[in-house]
Amino acid sequence: MSATVRTIDWRDGQIEIIDQTLLPGELRVIALRTTEELVGAIRRLAVRGAMALGVAGALGVALAAARAAERGDDVDEGVDDAAARLIGARPTAVNLAWGVERARAARAGGSRAILAAALDVLADDIEANRAIGRRGAALLVGRRRILTHCNAGSLAAVEEGTALAVIGALYAMDELELVYACETRPLLQGARLTTWELGRMGVPHRLIVDGAAAGLIVGGRIDAVVVGADRIAANGDVANKVGTLAHALAARRAGIPFVVAAPESTIDLATARGEDIEIEERDAGEVLRFAGVATAPAGTAAANPAFDVTPADLISAIVTERRTIVPNASLAAPIAALV
Amino acid sequence: MSATVRTIDWRDGQIEIIDQTLLPGELRVIALRTTEELVGAIRRLAVRGAMALGVAGALGVALAAARAAERGDDVDEGVDDAAARLIGARPTAVNLAWGVERARAARAGGSRAILAAALDVLADDIEANRAIGRRGAALLVGRRRILTHCNAGSLAAVEEGTALAVIGALYAMDELELVYACETRPLLQGARLTTWELGRMGVPHRLIVDGAAAGLIVGGRIDAVVVGADRIAANGDVANKVGTLAHALAARRAGIPFVVAAPESTIDLATARGEDIEIEERDAGEVLRFAGVATAPAGTAAANPAFDVTPADLISAIVTERRTIVPNASLAAPIAALV
Repeated sequence: MSATVRTIDWRDGQIEIIDQTLLPGELRVIALRTTEELVGAIRRLAVRGAMALGVAGALGVALAAARAAERGDDVDEGVDDAAARLIGARPTAVNLAWGVERARAARAGGSRAILAAALDVLADDIEANRAIGRRGAALLVGRRRILTHCNAGSLAAVEEGTALAVIGALYAMDELELVYACETRPLLQGARLTTWELGRMGVPHRLIVDGAAAGLIVGGRIDAVVVGADRIAANGDVANKVGTLAHALAARRAGIPFVVAAPESTIDLATARGEDIEIEERDAGEVLRFAGVATAPAGTAAANPAFDVTPADLISAIVTERRTIVPNASLAAPIAALV
Repeated sequence: MSATVRTIDWRDGQIEIIDQTLLPGELRVIALRTTEELVGAIRRLAVRGAMALGVAGALGVALAAARAAERGDDVDEGVDDAAARLIGARPTAVNLAWGVERARAARAGGSRAILAAALDVLADDIEANRAIGRRGAALLVGRRRILTHCNAGSLAAVEEGTALAVIGALYAMDELELVYACETRPLLQGARLTTWELGRMGVPHRLIVDGAAAGLIVGGRIDAVVVGADRIAANGDVANKVGTLAHALAARRAGIPFVVAAPESTIDLATARGEDIEIEERDAGEVLRFAGVATAPAGTAAANPAFDVTPADLISAIVTERRTIVPNASLAAPIAALV
């Protein structure tokens, strides 16, 4: 996406976001004036993706502080109330809580200091994305056919994203032949958002159903898998959009790199292992309907976990803005050979 | 499905099928009077599934022979023409060609002998399904939470199907707790057909997106995976609906059985290995749209392989109407322990 429209931004005392539920049909920016409006936007995934949620958490706290200050209410109280409601909106996304806490840590300075801290989170996100893109691309030079899942692009961040920042950097280096974008049921972020971003970036790409990934990977048609992350446990287990684990299993079978691109803020040292990560169970209606059309007989029950956990031993490398982590020592050699 | 409506049948000199493109909304039986109508029905998946296609191939040859005889045309010529067109309608499905050849083998006896041979294929399918159900259920007693993919039920056969015959037999033995049905993008046979069948059978079930399977399997929420097959190579590699391979990889990771339920006619000894199986590439529109609703930006390119190949070493057992094949010797012990 061009930098002219940021996924999330602060303007005139309110939060502006691209309403991602309208993409790819319509690019509409909406203003959010209250915690309630922001929580609603987060829940219906109008703003989503790990980094964008971190920025949303920070700006949400700043928004609550500003509104409390305008009304002459107690800023601390307004901030605490907003923080709890924001964190509860998406329980698996660690960045959301992280962003909230980064802004809240400035509370001693009042609403202006809180806003400054939130704008730092936003600026840091942009810089971190660029660094992740450079670092990931350096790791994957020579891997010309890349598969990605869901949307870890500019729409998941402020400007560039993570997995798509890596893809963009590879493309800028003329090191990319084709991207396979998984549609990512149930909400089709890959079909709706990643293809839209890849189109704007000019990157050649093919959309596939999620179930087609393993066959393409094991069949030798993919050279590397690059995905984002919603939470990384201390042992290197990664929670990401449901469907990710199957790609990691296929990548291991095929002997190709499975790389996670994520900011440091996604790493949650308070969570020891993947099995300790709470997996958000979303509404069954997302599974029972496809693009608004019912797909199953009326009354069918569905299970709808929003994420899955890829164990650390299946991950070739976790690329952050500061470092490349190789969780599984036995994979160190092939990854080192790539650098 | 109750036996009162067969998926495919011969009645009054024509083929009758349930039009599966209308399910689960409407149960409509349509009559097919010509090879052209049958080929059209096969291509648009109004009739689909390995065994139903075998019966369709046989009845299709009988239909062509009957029409040629009625017109006073050369029966052999009519049969040869129909055979080529039928086999070309779905190149990956070996049963289709097998059914065609079984009926054609009776050509020396004329159109009546061809019809008798085709009706034998139909009767044999019903009996084979029952035997597969019994054999598979005996293998899986104690595995109470089963995951299946696509539709390997009555709608893929004449009456009972394969994977769903196993599930039905387990349920009849009071050995089944819950079935997870993968929706099976792009054409949603799991969402539309398998849930419909499970509902009619009274079997407790949950619909999931295909990408959720690996997380549930590796997370310990599934006790066995049972799927059908479209073609089994001589070395035990299995081509089945796209998305199957990922479930097999997850089952291996979790150490649970991955069982293929299929009639002997699915085994293609002329194909040495999975990589020799032609994978049908279907129209990109199946990925880019659903029920007329576009899911991706206009102009997006898509890849749409209809099948994938699960290597024999990931398969715990192949259950046919005659035997249980354990392609991977290293898995013999755990499967033997189940019997």
